[in-house]
Amino acid sequence: MEISENNFIKGIRKFSRKSNSVIRGIGDDGAVAELGAGQYVFVQDAMAEHVHFEFSFMDPYYVGKKALYSNISDVLAMGAQPVFYLVTVGIPAGISSGQMERMYRGMNRVAREFGVTLLGGDTVATAKDLFIDISVTGKLAGARYFGRDKARRGDLIAVTGKLGEAALGLKVLKEGGDATGMKNCVRRFLSPAPPYGLWKEIVKDDITDVMMDVSDGLILDLSRMMDESRKQARIHWEKVPMPRPLRQRGLEELAFGGGEDYQLLFTFPREKLPVVAAMIDKGRAVTIIGEVVSGRGVRVYRHGSEVTSPPGGYDHFGGRL
Amino acid sequence: MEISENNFIKGIRKFSRKSNSVIRGIGDDGAVAELGAGQYVFVQDAMAEHVHFEFSFMDPYYVGKKALYSNISDVLAMGAQPVFYLVTVGIPAGISSGQMERMYRGMNRVAREFGVTLLGGDTVATAKDLFIDISVTGKLAGARYFGRDKARRGDLIAVTGKLGEAALGLKVLKEGGDATGMKNCVRRFLSPAPPYGLWKEIVKDDITDVMMDVSDGLILDLSRMMDESRKQARIHWEKVPMPRPLRQRGLEELAFGGGEDYQLLFTFPREKLPVVAAMIDKGRAVTIIGEVVSGRGVRVYRHGSEVTSPPGGYDHFGGRL
Repeated sequence: MEISENNFIKGIRKFSRKSNSVIRGIGDDGAVAELGAGQYVFVQDAMAEHVHFEFSFMDPYYVGKKALYSNISDVLAMGAQPVFYLVTVGIPAGISSGQMERMYRGMNRVAREFGVTLLGGDTVATAKDLFIDISVTGKLAGARYFGRDKARRGDLIAVTGKLGEAALGLKVLKEGGDATGMKNCVRRFLSPAPPYGLWKEIVKDDITDVMMDVSDGLILDLSRMMDESRKQARIHWEKVPMPRPLRQRGLEELAFGGGEDYQLLFTFPREKLPVVAAMIDKGRAVTIIGEVVSGRGVRVYRHGSEVTSPPGGYDHFGGRL
Repeated sequence: MEISENNFIKGIRKFSRKSNSVIRGIGDDGAVAELGAGQYVFVQDAMAEHVHFEFSFMDPYYVGKKALYSNISDVLAMGAQPVFYLVTVGIPAGISSGQMERMYRGMNRVAREFGVTLLGGDTVATAKDLFIDISVTGKLAGARYFGRDKARRGDLIAVTGKLGEAALGLKVLKEGGDATGMKNCVRRFLSPAPPYGLWKEIVKDDITDVMMDVSDGLILDLSRMMDESRKQARIHWEKVPMPRPLRQRGLEELAFGGGEDYQLLFTFPREKLPVVAAMIDKGRAVTIIGEVVSGRGVRVYRHGSEVTSPPGGYDHFGGRL
């Protein structure tokens, strides 16, 4: 282990930003923060070496960024503004202090973007592989949380950005080959910034209280939402937004089954359609892909006919509790 | 991987207790809880296989218990009542669903003991070893947090329970041999319940606002407290409470350098001495071991003479941020 503990922790302290609400930051058994009364969102999500990433194609800077982005994505998807985070890194022998520094720099970059404060966490040795586990606390932005359990019959289903980008980006990183026109996809895999501007508009315009992020693939994630809401989703193959290279290469199924895009998936009642249509007219990256009906599960229609075995979501084992 | 994700997560839901303050529990991108205004403590702490434990001598039930105890210990040491926790488990191939179930049962046992509610977390596959990382949020019990940075010149230094028990317990588990009279030590290593009753008395009697838990060994932890407080600690070898087998086996240094006892270390002003003395008279496991003076670091005295190279704390690398 190249890292000297005390120096390392002192090094991390510089990323602990001053905040009026933080009474006691890094340097004690725990951090102390002053909170106003209200509803708060709690999330915790990890990434493990050789499972979610390899250092051969992902610099620690991006591991740090992505680990925090994915957690912030969850907080936004619950309708909350992220406020604090804590991070545990499991560090195997052979990781240099430079690599650790880059990982924390990546997190710090994201923390500034969202105004989130590092409160603390832990560093532990591991026998073999690196892991990073982050918890984020957010404060509800509106009067009620955005839940998977609130989709209603007649709601329309929409998604931000394009789907399948991260899966294609990962394919490029792993397999190499011609990457022309796929820079966005690689960036989406390495640095999946949640669509914060769009989220703020959705909150401001009070469009919905039914939202989740697309972390495991459209079909799998949407089926979880329908499970929780006890409804059925019908989506239209042609409408699902995907990057051009997916269609060109015959990889459209990655838009349905590829994970880690961290786009926002939401339903909204038809009376909000004018507001959503206005967003789309202004060029916002929002696409209506289907509707909620009675029943269960997800059905995919292509040119009006049901696709009998739609491409499923992938499951990088485990999953959020 | 023997574990089927969806069934597993459904299995975990049973441990998510109903609580008035929990608006949305397991089953969404995050949990939602209602909090009153005030000061809150945030901690996050991990344990890794082959570093902090081996399944050969530690059943998953105890891994779960200890992981949550150690986090709760941090929250108590900050002067807060633990309220919620989230847990991430990194699961290698070869772990059975029965083992996972026992780990969550261990956590659940501890959660009941302290009235803490499981809010969520994550499960991820790992390439090789298991890790468990827990975050706990607590609410300040009194008007101010208990900090390492508040020790004052003239304060007395006290500790709960006995020190070195966990280190001796680990030695017994690893090396085998005659374990007569060491059941308590083995239990302390496997299941280090923080001294909750004593903590409540200390809070109720308003004895201190300077506290930490002994996780890495008395000398190392006390030196951290002195660092933060910019003071010096003088402790008396004879007074340090330790289990009889340590003295019998000439292993007294484990009381100074052995970690993971999760006892509470605190200082208090002399005007509180009558209250602490009354606790001790009632048979409470509190021992006064020294005093705070001007200077830096920790000095150990034995029969009045300074011990020139006192046994240091051990450092299971990394450490709390």
